[in-house]
Amino acid sequence: MPVNLPAPDPATLFPIAGVRIGVVEAGVRKQGRKDVTVFLLDPGSSVGGVFTTNRFCAAPVQICQHNLAQGAAVRAIVINTGNANAGTGADGLARAQATCEAMAQRLQIDVSQVLPFSTGVIMEPLPSERIIAALDSAIANAAPDHWLQAAQGIMTTDTVPKAFGAQVQIGGSTVSITGISKGAGMIRPNMATMLGFIASDACVHPSLMQPLALAIAQQSFNCVTVDGDTSTNDSLVVVATHQAGHVQIDSLSSSEGEALFAAMLSVAQRLAHAIVRDGEGATKFITLQIDGGATVAECSKVAYAIAHSPLVKTAFFASDPNLGRILAAVGYAGIDDLDQSRIELFLDDVHVATRGGRNPDYQEADGQRVMRQSEILVRVDLGRGSASHTVWTCDLSHDYVTINADYRS
Amino acid sequence: MPVNLPAPDPATLFPIAGVRIGVVEAGVRKQGRKDVTVFLLDPGSSVGGVFTTNRFCAAPVQICQHNLAQGAAVRAIVINTGNANAGTGADGLARAQATCEAMAQRLQIDVSQVLPFSTGVIMEPLPSERIIAALDSAIANAAPDHWLQAAQGIMTTDTVPKAFGAQVQIGGSTVSITGISKGAGMIRPNMATMLGFIASDACVHPSLMQPLALAIAQQSFNCVTVDGDTSTNDSLVVVATHQAGHVQIDSLSSSEGEALFAAMLSVAQRLAHAIVRDGEGATKFITLQIDGGATVAECSKVAYAIAHSPLVKTAFFASDPNLGRILAAVGYAGIDDLDQSRIELFLDDVHVATRGGRNPDYQEADGQRVMRQSEILVRVDLGRGSASHTVWTCDLSHDYVTINADYRS
Repeated sequence: MPVNLPAPDPATLFPIAGVRIGVVEAGVRKQGRKDVTVFLLDPGSSVGGVFTTNRFCAAPVQICQHNLAQGAAVRAIVINTGNANAGTGADGLARAQATCEAMAQRLQIDVSQVLPFSTGVIMEPLPSERIIAALDSAIANAAPDHWLQAAQGIMTTDTVPKAFGAQVQIGGSTVSITGISKGAGMIRPNMATMLGFIASDACVHPSLMQPLALAIAQQSFNCVTVDGDTSTNDSLVVVATHQAGHVQIDSLSSSEGEALFAAMLSVAQRLAHAIVRDGEGATKFITLQIDGGATVAECSKVAYAIAHSPLVKTAFFASDPNLGRILAAVGYAGIDDLDQSRIELFLDDVHVATRGGRNPDYQEADGQRVMRQSEILVRVDLGRGSASHTVWTCDLSHDYVTINADYRS
Repeated sequence: MPVNLPAPDPATLFPIAGVRIGVVEAGVRKQGRKDVTVFLLDPGSSVGGVFTTNRFCAAPVQICQHNLAQGAAVRAIVINTGNANAGTGADGLARAQATCEAMAQRLQIDVSQVLPFSTGVIMEPLPSERIIAALDSAIANAAPDHWLQAAQGIMTTDTVPKAFGAQVQIGGSTVSITGISKGAGMIRPNMATMLGFIASDACVHPSLMQPLALAIAQQSFNCVTVDGDTSTNDSLVVVATHQAGHVQIDSLSSSEGEALFAAMLSVAQRLAHAIVRDGEGATKFITLQIDGGATVAECSKVAYAIAHSPLVKTAFFASDPNLGRILAAVGYAGIDDLDQSRIELFLDDVHVATRGGRNPDYQEADGQRVMRQSEILVRVDLGRGSASHTVWTCDLSHDYVTINADYRS
């Protein structure tokens, strides 16, 4: 059961002029589910992408990075679930490339204008022939209002499709933004999440798309973690189709650039939070706010140490205010000169620890009350400076073990 | 159920001349269990200690480090379970010190000659008055043949007491070594484990005790992990009572020094392995051997990335050869210039992946066969150099979640 994550509201999934989406069943791994999604982009669209830092990055990630680095004018995106095409060596690269070639042939574009994405099991050969066989029907199925179907089409162990939209006024035009993501497990994005696609009809100078994608990832997908496992396939793609009619945005620090960034970030953060809310086995949505650091980097270290501690995560699952486990995680986060006597710990409004020890006024009943909530704010003040960082995570439950012990079977 | 870990064999728990052990019930946290253990050391004993790197290290750890740094001639060790006396601030230090003072008074020694140790719940005030009240009976109970009782006395969530002994001929004398440890959860020792005590009647120059303790920790307790949580209280103490009668060992690289080190290490490794075998919820004992690294440090990074991946650990629990998860963990271990096309992966004798992709000869049935075993060797060759490192860990099961969701209740 996801944590406070309703199904997407179709009324907010704005069609984006210049984007058509087709979703079909190709039988990649299992029968009876749509597993191939294609995005068709009008000429004039521009694209930015951010990808996993995992050195075992998947074959499609390698191809995407190569095509984007070349400055390819991307016209199509092909996504499959059921197989990650990672840990597949030279054969995996060849199969991803064959899929792109088949798509390019059908659209009469260059192969470098196709971006491939895969998600699913690692180290299995990609059944590219089955994906290729489904491309014609995917193209025929393509329509602007298929965002919800796309969100469903890219799910793996997700229990809820993830899709959000926003609209913002820019230069007298209404600019629409719609995005989808998938997640659930192997989630500690580091540069982007498992799969995220955000499109807008905004008019943006193509050179801004890459910094835009990076900046959005840094404040959304790069701040969530379920299990600390950085995937081989993490990818975030941001598309602008240039069809909204306003004057082109040439700087992200212009007022128009800031308006677009804020609206896109709101979509990206909701998508990223949705991944945590639907994290495998999640029963709680936990915000870790680390203040008082000397640097953002050390705040981030502390946040992830807490977020990845199995002991902290199981205590949240049990609603057990065994909060010394949080102090222990702060202690081993890797800040060599941390002074424990300056640490303050808060659980929502409850002041749990002061000067590195239990707050004399702290009552366990208060900690218990907060721990029972489905949304919890943990705030740590390191007492070392003025830097802050926030990370979102979930608890570790029996269902996480069940899901991951049974995933392939 | 621990993995292939029988109860200690009393015949191998050699009494150590110069060491007497008392174990009593003080009611630290719960009634009906022995929770205070004292070691009384004869004059002339020398001691080395290695402690957690957690910056939230417990009050007793701070006192031990202080006393050992002063070169105190240690005569007594006081250990309690049920309360870690960590995250307890200035009050915790005062309570640990009060316990040492009470012990020193009873033995007519200096307070710096007492080393305190605590293990249990974090951020609860230590009931030092109850521990102090139990010291007289603990001293009265002290006897050389109480090693098994001591192993039982320091247990927390351990299901099996951990105690091993060895004997070795040095300079014509039989030198005995006996050790105990506890572990189970919050186990990723970094300089030492939760609690480990190893004593010998060997005659060793006091200046060698600290390097001896360090070297032993590096090859035993520092190579195991259950859940990646480095405890606030990790402590390893190595004692030599100087009563075996052989000529004093003045160098660890003499043949006598090497013989003692090898025998002590064999005890320490069995104690460290026992902690993993009895890891919370463990059903498998997994050896991670990383070869072909450029440095030992990068081999260690890879080993711990695999050992801490919840996805890898749940796959082991399920006996599911979902081995791409291991490649993913290798990929995010933090080796920036790792070349995935050089990676080889073996599961026992099964060659699973070659050149970063699935070995064409690999049959899933072979992977399945090994995954069903209770003892599994994972070997990764990084193809970068000649360094190696080995880490021992266990799987992640439903029982881990159950134990840690219920620990305090």
